[in-house]
Amino acid sequence: MTRLNSGMLPGSAAIGQRSLGDPSRSFPLLPVIVDGCPATSTDAMQYPLEIAYDYDKVDRSLFDQAPLPGLSRWAPLLPPLADGLSMGEGGTPLVDAEEFGREIGVKGRLWLKDESRNPTWSHKDRLNYCVVSAAIASEARGIAVASSGNHGAAAAAYAARAGLPCAVIVAQNMPDAYLRLITSLGAHVIASPTESRWTVLRRIVDEAGFMPASNLTRFHTGNPYGPEGYKTIAYELFLQLGRSVPSTVLAPTGYAEMLFGVWKGFQELKNLGLTDRVPRILSAEPATRGPLARAVSSNEPATEVDGPASIAMGISCSVSSWRGVVALENSRDRALTSSEDTFQDMRRRLAARGLYQEFSGVAGLAAAKEASERGVELDGDVVAILTSTGLKDAELLAPPDNLYNLDSLDTLIAELQRI
Amino acid sequence: MTRLNSGMLPGSAAIGQRSLGDPSRSFPLLPVIVDGCPATSTDAMQYPLEIAYDYDKVDRSLFDQAPLPGLSRWAPLLPPLADGLSMGEGGTPLVDAEEFGREIGVKGRLWLKDESRNPTWSHKDRLNYCVVSAAIASEARGIAVASSGNHGAAAAAYAARAGLPCAVIVAQNMPDAYLRLITSLGAHVIASPTESRWTVLRRIVDEAGFMPASNLTRFHTGNPYGPEGYKTIAYELFLQLGRSVPSTVLAPTGYAEMLFGVWKGFQELKNLGLTDRVPRILSAEPATRGPLARAVSSNEPATEVDGPASIAMGISCSVSSWRGVVALENSRDRALTSSEDTFQDMRRRLAARGLYQEFSGVAGLAAAKEASERGVELDGDVVAILTSTGLKDAELLAPPDNLYNLDSLDTLIAELQRI
Repeated sequence: MTRLNSGMLPGSAAIGQRSLGDPSRSFPLLPVIVDGCPATSTDAMQYPLEIAYDYDKVDRSLFDQAPLPGLSRWAPLLPPLADGLSMGEGGTPLVDAEEFGREIGVKGRLWLKDESRNPTWSHKDRLNYCVVSAAIASEARGIAVASSGNHGAAAAAYAARAGLPCAVIVAQNMPDAYLRLITSLGAHVIASPTESRWTVLRRIVDEAGFMPASNLTRFHTGNPYGPEGYKTIAYELFLQLGRSVPSTVLAPTGYAEMLFGVWKGFQELKNLGLTDRVPRILSAEPATRGPLARAVSSNEPATEVDGPASIAMGISCSVSSWRGVVALENSRDRALTSSEDTFQDMRRRLAARGLYQEFSGVAGLAAAKEASERGVELDGDVVAILTSTGLKDAELLAPPDNLYNLDSLDTLIAELQRI
Repeated sequence: MTRLNSGMLPGSAAIGQRSLGDPSRSFPLLPVIVDGCPATSTDAMQYPLEIAYDYDKVDRSLFDQAPLPGLSRWAPLLPPLADGLSMGEGGTPLVDAEEFGREIGVKGRLWLKDESRNPTWSHKDRLNYCVVSAAIASEARGIAVASSGNHGAAAAAYAARAGLPCAVIVAQNMPDAYLRLITSLGAHVIASPTESRWTVLRRIVDEAGFMPASNLTRFHTGNPYGPEGYKTIAYELFLQLGRSVPSTVLAPTGYAEMLFGVWKGFQELKNLGLTDRVPRILSAEPATRGPLARAVSSNEPATEVDGPASIAMGISCSVSSWRGVVALENSRDRALTSSEDTFQDMRRRLAARGLYQEFSGVAGLAAAKEASERGVELDGDVVAILTSTGLKDAELLAPPDNLYNLDSLDTLIAELQRI
């Protein structure tokens, strides 16, 4: 394994790790705090941290550029990034889906931000570019992550690029496409029952000196560096919509790291004077659990819920995070949940229009449909973030029923003549 | 199915279909000629057509833009494109791989053009955006294609976006990931023995009035509109390398449509006065067949070869095309072939650096390695085009051997401590 040995990119305006439990409390940028805010967390509740910046150091002309791939272009507004680590993440297309929006009840103009165009074909590449950079800055011996798939794949890829070992703890029933991806990327993969995965992660962190790229606390706090990567989705949307912001963004939501990152990115645009309004950010969870929706409706900082796992594996979470409540601005109207049937329906309908996403990937569309059925108006520019390719969880699909062979060719041709 | 009904984008400088067998022979833009050049083809040899342009109509300031996704930005240099059909194809990142280049013997600086960032995660989206546009312009009743996978997926996706029916003829042993992708995209899929697939395609074209997106002749001629889409790879490389052209481009090669398109794109840059030199374009075929390498070495316009199928399914072709000979400028030194072992080795090594490609996708790297072993110098900026994600043919991989469970956790941790 060749270690990346080129140092950190200059120009980051990051100044510290700030508590989201009490924003008056800050900590230095290093060491990375991987157990939640030490000042505000208790046994009953754990609060995450974010990265704080000296925005006066950020030149607004940073936004006089095209939203191309390669997140190092946003270095001033990101934590310190490792030089040479980028694999052209981000800069994902915004696909016009106005007509499809009408079909699912969106009043305004629907746009799809297709994150399956990233290096490992999910949004998680943005997060792991930042986390693996933090691991390099920390001189961590490796990266460790417990993951339903996308997070593990992205961590493995960036660790591979960095020349760092990577351990990925996965569910015993993880689809084979994920497994082959993550093992091919050179990670050590540990299949573990769900209830043991945090213990396994903790051991690898403590005993092997690996940096966790995922969470170690009961309520989700995660790695403070990760969600910063998602801010770039907001920056790109601003540029892709002609230096304007959408009315609404719908984000597939598990532990709400992307939800928070996108929300924070738009807040920054406002604070930098680039926009005078911010979009409404809506969370899209599977209704089988939906811990964030539960938390905001019961006015709690986080909850733990029972309920069956969702087919949307990537966001089938039992606990929520304070980050989610912050991003929803504590509004229960912004927490949407969708039925399993709606996930199935949205995946099918989107593919019939040319875009093939895994079940988690269509959560934003499922939420848009449920919102419109509940009379919530989605007007103006409405963005649904698509998070990951349908190639990864395809084994969860029913076997195809539209197959022909030479024996049925005459039937098919007759059918095609009638279309 | 909702038909796309928004007409064609303005601005194309295309003027006709020109014979590659005799460039003095031209035909109108419509109807699309899907059987090769009628003037120069014989029973023994079939010549393809290309699209001709009035370059005087093309404003050079077209190249004063960033290489973002969305090929409609190149409308002047492409055939007429359907409005609203784009799904943000192209604009794929150019990933720095200098160190990996050293590892495989590249003297210069290796760059990877990662085409797995396209809408259906392969380069074929560029081609099918143009072909489905031609089908719309022609008022074809649907699209038909015989494909090893990537071509079928991309045709199905763009047909779905256009609201046109699509029939895809596939091999009986096509990997399941491909099958689920193509069927999910709404295509009618016909599994056929290899020897019957052209007959099936011909019947669907003749009897159902579908436009072929793939080939109908013995030697490959294909759809004249398709390869034009690949020219945009050359335009993007020119901009991504700071308005300069690489010394060498290595292109995975089946029927040489991409090879020809990339070559033509660079020729156009030169003709437009944007560069004074053009790169050497090298073809990368599997050595088990390699019909193009055979054709140029025996000085024939095209050949048919025997030989076992390659694990690089997408480029495991028995016949070649005149397009390939044109793109190689008839130079036998530019036709590279690689062993099956080299494909295996390159896929593994590239994934160990963070990028997971299918076997066809690493052909350019395999060729680079074989070239350097044969003493062919690859200096300056060297670009290998990666064509498609490893998620598609993952079932061809050996089962992973680096898996752990709770029973072997102590062993793993001891191992991680030693790394």
